[in-house]
Amino acid sequence: MPPAPISPFAVDLADPVQVEHATEALAQALQKTAVARDQRGGHARTERELIRDSGLLNLTTPRAHGGWGHSWQFFSRGLRRLAQADSALAHLYAFHHLQVATVLLYGEPEQHEFFLRPTVRERLFWGNALNPNDKRALAQAEGTGFVVNGPKSYCSGSVGSDRLSFSAWHEPTQSLLIAALPSRSPGISIQGDWDAFGQRQTDSGTVQFDQVRVQAHEVLVRPGTVLQPRATLRSQIAQLILVNLYVGIAQGALAHGLRYTRDSSRPFFASGVARAVDDPYIQHRYGELSVLVRPAEVLADLAARRLDEALALGADVTAADRGKVAVAVAEAKAVAHRAAIEVSSQVFELTGAGATASRLGLDRFWRNARVHTLHDPLDYKLRDLGRHALLGRYPEPTAYS
Amino acid sequence: MPPAPISPFAVDLADPVQVEHATEALAQALQKTAVARDQRGGHARTERELIRDSGLLNLTTPRAHGGWGHSWQFFSRGLRRLAQADSALAHLYAFHHLQVATVLLYGEPEQHEFFLRPTVRERLFWGNALNPNDKRALAQAEGTGFVVNGPKSYCSGSVGSDRLSFSAWHEPTQSLLIAALPSRSPGISIQGDWDAFGQRQTDSGTVQFDQVRVQAHEVLVRPGTVLQPRATLRSQIAQLILVNLYVGIAQGALAHGLRYTRDSSRPFFASGVARAVDDPYIQHRYGELSVLVRPAEVLADLAARRLDEALALGADVTAADRGKVAVAVAEAKAVAHRAAIEVSSQVFELTGAGATASRLGLDRFWRNARVHTLHDPLDYKLRDLGRHALLGRYPEPTAYS
Amino acid sequence: MPPAPISPFAVDLADPVQVEHATEALAQALQKTAVARDQRGGHARTERELIRDSGLLNLTTPRAHGGWGHSWQFFSRGLRRLAQADSALAHLYAFHHLQVATVLLYGEPEQHEFFLRPTVRERLFWGNALNPNDKRALAQAEGTGFVVNGPKSYCSGSVGSDRLSFSAWHEPTQSLLIAALPSRSPGISIQGDWDAFGQRQTDSGTVQFDQVRVQAHEVLVRPGTVLQPRATLRSQIAQLILVNLYVGIAQGALAHGLRYTRDSSRPFFASGVARAVDDPYIQHRYGELSVLVRPAEVLADLAARRLDEALALGADVTAADRGKVAVAVAEAKAVAHRAAIEVSSQVFELTGAGATASRLGLDRFWRNARVHTLHDPLDYKLRDLGRHALLGRYPEPTAYS
Amino acid sequence: MPPAPISPFAVDLADPVQVEHATEALAQALQKTAVARDQRGGHARTERELIRDSGLLNLTTPRAHGGWGHSWQFFSRGLRRLAQADSALAHLYAFHHLQVATVLLYGEPEQHEFFLRPTVRERLFWGNALNPNDKRALAQAEGTGFVVNGPKSYCSGSVGSDRLSFSAWHEPTQSLLIAALPSRSPGISIQGDWDAFGQRQTDSGTVQFDQVRVQAHEVLVRPGTVLQPRATLRSQIAQLILVNLYVGIAQGALAHGLRYTRDSSRPFFASGVARAVDDPYIQHRYGELSVLVRPAEVLADLAARRLDEALALGADVTAADRGKVAVAVAEAKAVAHRAAIEVSSQVFELTGAGATASRLGLDRFWRNARVHTLHDPLDYKLRDLGRHALLGRYPEPTAYS
Repeated sequence: MPPAPISPFAVDLADPVQVEHATEALAQALQKTAVARDQRGGHARTERELIRDSGLLNLTTPRAHGGWGHSWQFFSRGLRRLAQADSALAHLYAFHHLQVATVLLYGEPEQHEFFLRPTVRERLFWGNALNPNDKRALAQAEGTGFVVNGPKSYCSGSVGSDRLSFSAWHEPTQSLLIAALPSRSPGISIQGDWDAFGQRQTDSGTVQFDQVRVQAHEVLVRPGTVLQPRATLRSQIAQLILVNLYVGIAQGALAHGLRYTRDSSRPFFASGVARAVDDPYIQHRYGELSVLVRPAEVLADLAARRLDEALALGADVTAADRGKVAVAVAEAKAVAHRAAIEVSSQVFELTGAGATASRLGLDRFWRNARVHTLHDPLDYKLRDLGRHALLGRYPEPTAYS
Repeated sequence: MPPAPISPFAVDLADPVQVEHATEALAQALQKTAVARDQRGGHARTERELIRDSGLLNLTTPRAHGGWGHSWQFFSRGLRRLAQADSALAHLYAFHHLQVATVLLYGEPEQHEFFLRPTVRERLFWGNALNPNDKRALAQAEGTGFVVNGPKSYCSGSVGSDRLSFSAWHEPTQSLLIAALPSRSPGISIQGDWDAFGQRQTDSGTVQFDQVRVQAHEVLVRPGTVLQPRATLRSQIAQLILVNLYVGIAQGALAHGLRYTRDSSRPFFASGVARAVDDPYIQHRYGELSVLVRPAEVLADLAARRLDEALALGADVTAADRGKVAVAVAEAKAVAHRAAIEVSSQVFELTGAGATASRLGLDRFWRNARVHTLHDPLDYKLRDLGRHALLGRYPEPTAYS
Repeated sequence: MPPAPISPFAVDLADPVQVEHATEALAQALQKTAVARDQRGGHARTERELIRDSGLLNLTTPRAHGGWGHSWQFFSRGLRRLAQADSALAHLYAFHHLQVATVLLYGEPEQHEFFLRPTVRERLFWGNALNPNDKRALAQAEGTGFVVNGPKSYCSGSVGSDRLSFSAWHEPTQSLLIAALPSRSPGISIQGDWDAFGQRQTDSGTVQFDQVRVQAHEVLVRPGTVLQPRATLRSQIAQLILVNLYVGIAQGALAHGLRYTRDSSRPFFASGVARAVDDPYIQHRYGELSVLVRPAEVLADLAARRLDEALALGADVTAADRGKVAVAVAEAKAVAHRAAIEVSSQVFELTGAGATASRLGLDRFWRNARVHTLHDPLDYKLRDLGRHALLGRYPEPTAYS
Repeated sequence: MPPAPISPFAVDLADPVQVEHATEALAQALQKTAVARDQRGGHARTERELIRDSGLLNLTTPRAHGGWGHSWQFFSRGLRRLAQADSALAHLYAFHHLQVATVLLYGEPEQHEFFLRPTVRERLFWGNALNPNDKRALAQAEGTGFVVNGPKSYCSGSVGSDRLSFSAWHEPTQSLLIAALPSRSPGISIQGDWDAFGQRQTDSGTVQFDQVRVQAHEVLVRPGTVLQPRATLRSQIAQLILVNLYVGIAQGALAHGLRYTRDSSRPFFASGVARAVDDPYIQHRYGELSVLVRPAEVLADLAARRLDEALALGADVTAADRGKVAVAVAEAKAVAHRAAIEVSSQVFELTGAGATASRLGLDRFWRNARVHTLHDPLDYKLRDLGRHALLGRYPEPTAYS
C-alpha cells in the first residue's frame, strides 16, 4: 500500500519518521514516470514541483533560518532512496541542498539569514552555475560589487530554478568570484541545452551571463580569498552527494534486477532448474552484486557521519579534521562509483534478454551511473587515497577533493 | 580518403583484397548514419540494401552454388569491421550467412542447390525464426510435409527478408522441425515489434505462423532426426558470429574512445599535463583496454580457424573434432563478451563527460554489447569450459553450445 | 616508543584503554618473532604464554564467571591488531574465545560456571577438535555419558591446550555429540602434525580419541538435540573470527607494503620521479588497495555490532534475528576474504623485487590468507547472500553459515 | 609411461619431434624433485647438468655455429613445458639462450663464432651479470679493453655458469659496457647469495668484479654505442622469455589444481553433489581460470612469431618493425603476468584446504609467479601500450621494453 498523499504543510519534518514517510512518497511518485521522463529528457517541471511540495528542500537548512536542521547522515539516506527511483531528480534535489550549504559555508552570518529565510518561506529551489573548470564567464570589479559576462557549462538545476549560485573567473587575482542571485536577474539567460545520454533531467546545460550585476551582499567569496578549512568542506558535501547518488543508482539497479529475475526471468534450458531464482549461478552472482552495493552503503554512511562531526566543530575545524572527512568521502566515492557502474551493467546477466525491452527502461541505471560518475576522474581520487596511505598527506582542498 | 563507391558487379570478390575494399566501403557507409539509426530504431531498409549491393552476402556460399567460397576465418575479420561501425546491421549480415550455413549443414545436397542458387542469383537476404527456446510455434505432419501454427520470438533479420529459416515444435517427437521458406509465404506474418535498448535495428521481433504449409523439400531437419557431428557445427557458427560481433563492438568502442580523447578531451586540472593524452592514468587505462580487446581478437581468429579445419573434414567430423571447435569458440566467447561489456563501459572514464552528449551516441556500444551478450548465459559457457578442463568432457551439442 | 611491559595482574581490563594497551604490547611482542616462527612452523609455546600472560583470554568471558565481559565488537578490533602482527597466533587467541562462547551458547547455566570459572582462575587456554566434516571420531552412549574413539582433523589450538571442545559422530542419531574435556584426559592424544604452507603455528593437526570417557556434565550438546536460534549464533562467532583474521592480514600486508615502499623501494627508471612514493602508479594502486581494505574493516565492525545486538536479546533471539547476523557476517566475510588475498598478493607490485627477500618474510601474508580463507568456500557464502537477496531466505544455520 | 631416458648424443635435435621428446623428458625429471628443491633453495647442480645433458642448450644457436637453429616460437613452447614443472630451472635454461642471443645481436660476426662454437662444442652454460639498473660495477678503459670493478645484483644463472655476459657502468659516456667472459676469469667472484621466497633456484645473486680485465674481442657493446633496431630486439627476447615463464607457471598451477580437485578434493557438504568435480561453482571457476590462461598462451605464441619475423629481416629491421614486436610482447606480458598471479592464487579455492599441505608445495606457483613478475613493473608496460594506442608511439627501446 502506498503511503498517504503528500501534504507538506500538515507534517512536521522535524520528526525523522515523517521525513522518511515524505521521502518514500516522493520516491514512489518519481518512480511512476521515471522511465518515460528519461526517454523524453528535458526539464521535469511537474516533478520539480513534487519535490518542492514535499517540504524536503528545507531538510538541511538550519532551524535558525526556518529549516529542519537535519544531519547530512540523515539526509544521505533519503537521497539514496530518491536516487533509486530517479537519480536525475534526486540530483536536482541534492544540489539545492548543496547551494544552501554553499551559503552557510561561504557566506557571512548575515548572508545566511538573507539568503535562507526567503528560501524556506517562499519555497525557493536553488540551481547552480559554479563549474570551476569553465573559466569563460568573467568577473570584473564594479564599485563594491562585480559585473559578470560569459557562459558557464554544466549548470545543474539551472532551468526552472529560483536562485543560482555561480562562479566567475577574475583575471586580476587568477581566482574565482562566488556569488548568488535570483535566477531571473537581468542578464542571466538559462539555456536548457543539456543533452547527455544519462542523468537526462538534471537541467545541467549552459547559463549565459550578459552584464550581470552582483552587489557586495550577494558575493559569497570575493576573488583572492583564502578559504578556512571549514569553508572547504563544501566540496566534500558536493562529493558526498555524488556518493549517495551513485549508491542509490546501484541499489535501484539491483532492486529492479531482483524483481525482474523473480517475476519474469525464465530459467536457461541447461540449468536443470524450474525457476530462474533457483539457478546456482544466478544466486551466486546476486551475492556478488550484494557485496558490491553493501560496502558502498556503509562507507557512504560513515563518510556522512565524519562530515557531520567536522561541521559540528564549527570554526575550529582544522585542516586535518577536514582531511579526514575528505579521505572518508573519497573512499566511499571510489567504492560507490564502481558499485553503480558494475551493478547497473552486470545485473542484466541475471535477468536475461527480456529485461532489455525499451519500455522497461532498465538501461537507465547504467546510463545515469555512466554520465554521473564522470563528474571528476576516479583515478585522481585513488591517487589521493594512495598519497594519504603512503605519505599521510590529506587530499588538497579543491572543488573536487 | 574514403574508398571508391561500391559497385559490386564490377568487382571480383574471389579476391580477398577486393573483399576488404568492399567491406571497408560498406562499414564507412553504415558508420555515417549509425548514430541516427540507433536512436530511431526500427527497420533499416536502405542500409540492408547497401549490404545486399555490396555482394558480400555471397561471401561464404560455396563456389559450387555460385558464391565466393571464403573461409569463416576470412569472413570473421570482415564481420568485425562491420560491427565496429554498426553491430546491428553487422548482425543482420552475419545471420544471413548463418542461414546459408544452416542449409549447407542441415540440408541434403540437392537442397543446397535448390536454396542457394537463387540466393546468389536473385540476391536474396535471409532472416530467421529459429529460436529453439520458444516452443509456441507448433508443427503438425501433413502428407509428406507439415503445417505450422503459432508465434516465434527473437526472429533476427525477419523484417525485410526474402527467405526465412525457422523451427517449430513437434509434440509427438518432442523435438523441432527445421525448415526454410520464402518470407512472404502464405500465413507468415512478420511483426517488426523488436524494441530493445540495444542492437535496435536487428529486426529481431516476432514472426507469426498461421497454417503455414511446409513441403518435404523445404524441410531441413525432420523432427526426431539425430544430427551428425558435422551438422551440429551449425551452433558453433552461430556462436562464432556472436563472438565476432562482440569483438567488433569492443574494437569500435575503443577506437571511438581513443579518437575522442585525442581530439576533444581536456586534461583534468590536477593532472599537471597540458593534453589529456599525456595523462599517465589515461595512458595506463588505454593499455588496460587494449589488453582486454587483443585477446578477444586473437581467440576469435583461432576459433574460426578451428571451425574451418573441422568443416574441411567433411562428413568425417567426429564428436571430438566438433568438441574442439566448441571449446575454442567458448573460450573466445567468454573473453569477447567481457571485452565488449567492459571496454564499452570503461572507455568513458578516459574521455570525460563531454563524450556523453547524446548526439555522439557513444553509449550505443555498451547498449549493443549489453543486449547482444545476453543471447545465452556466459555462466554456462564457463561451466562447459570448466567441465572440459576437469573431466575432458566436450560441450554438449545444443543450439547454444 | 613501545608500550610498557605487560603485567597483567596490575591492569584492569575492564578499561578499554588498558585492553588496547595490552593488545598493542602483545601485538608488538608477536611481531618481533613472527617471520622466524613462520619459517619454523610448529608449536609456539613461548608466544602462547605471552597471550596467556596478557590477560586477554578473559576478554569476552562474562563478568559473572570472572571475565571482563567485553563485546564482540570490541574484541574484534583487538583481534585484527593481533592478526596484523601474526595471524596464526591471533587465530589461537580467537579460537580460545570461540570455545568460551561455545560453552556459553551450547551449555546449561551451571556448565558456564563449571567450565569458565576455572578457565579464568587457572588461566586455561582452550583448543578444539570440533571439525563437523570429519566423522571418523565416533561417540557411543555409555551410562549417562559417552565413549569416544577415532581421529579428528583440523584441531586448531589443540597442541598445548588445557581444555578441548570436541565433537564426535553419533551413528544412531546421525548427529554430533559436542562436549568439553581437559586436554590431558586419558585417551586423548594430540598429534601436532599440522603442516600447511600458511597459518603454520595454529596447532591445527590431528587429535586421536581412544576410549575417551565423557560424563554427562561434560556434554554440551547431546546427539539429536535441535538447537535454538541463539545457540546457532556460535557458527556466526566462528565466522566473525575468520572475518577479523582476514581483515587483520589485509591490514598487515598493506602496512608492511607501505613501509617497504616508503623506506626501501627504488623508483623505476622510466617513472621520471626520484622517489618510489612519488610514482603516480604506485600512489594510485595504494589507493586501490586502500579501498579493498577499508570496506572489509567497516563491514567487520558492522557484523560484530549485529552479533552483539542479537546476543543481547538473550533467549528471545528469533531465526530472523539470527539470519540478519548471518547476512551481515557473510557480507563481511566475502569482502574480507578478497581483501586479504588481493592485498597480500598485489602489494608486491608496489614494493618491487627487493621485498621478496626470504628474510623479510612478506609472503607470509598471502600464505596465511590463502590457507585460512579455505576454511569454507566463498562461493557458498555468495550463494547464500544471493538467495537472501532473491528470495528473502536467511542462510541455513550450519557449522559454516 | 615416462619417455625413454635422455641420451642427447643419440638424438637429432633438428627434428622437432625429438626436441619435444627431450623437453618432455627433462620436464618430468625436473618435476620429480621440484618441491624438495624449492624448499631447499640454493644451487641445483644436478638439475643444471640434466639441462646440459638434454642438448637443448643449443636449440636456438644458429646452425652456422653448430646449434640447431630453431625459432623462438618453437623454443617458447618448450620453455613453457619446462616452466610448468620448474620455473626456476626453466629460467636458467632460458637465460642461457638469452645470452646466446646477446652475443648474436650485440656482437660482431667473428664474435659469434668465437663465443658460440665453444659453447656448443664444450656444452657451456651461460649466466649473466647484466642488470642495467645496478650501476655499482664500473668500467674503466685500459688499452683497447676495460677493467671492471664493483658488484652487480640479480645475476641470474651466475652460480655454476661457464660464461657470463655482464654490463658495467662507464662514467665518461654515462652508458654501459657490455661484454662476455669465462665465469672463472680472474677477479670474478660469484656469491650465490640469492634468497627470495620464489624462483629460489635461479642462482640470481651478486657477482663481484675485482680488477677484471676485458679484452677488446670480449666486448659486445662499447660504451656510447647507439644500437641499431635489430640489436635492440634483445630486450624483447628477454621479455618474451619472461612471458613464457609466466605462461608456464599459470599452466602448471592450473594443471596441478585440476589434478588435485579430481583426485583428492572432497565436495563441500552444502553442494549436494557427491564429487567435487560436479560442484557447479568448481566447474565454473575452472572455466574462469581457463580463460585466464588461454589468452596468455595464444598471445605468447603470437609475440614469438612476430619476433621471429623481425629477426628474419636481418639488418633491415626498422624501428617500426621492432616496435611491432615490442607491442606484441607487451600485450602478451601483461596478460601472462596476470594469468600467472591469478591462477596460482585462485586455484586453491577449487582444491580446498587439503591442497595447502607443505609436502605438496603447491604454493610454489604463486611464489614463483610473484617473484618473477616483479622483474619490471606491469604498470609501465600498460602505459606503453596505452601510449601506442593513443599516439601510435612504439615502446622506447630500453633494457625492459
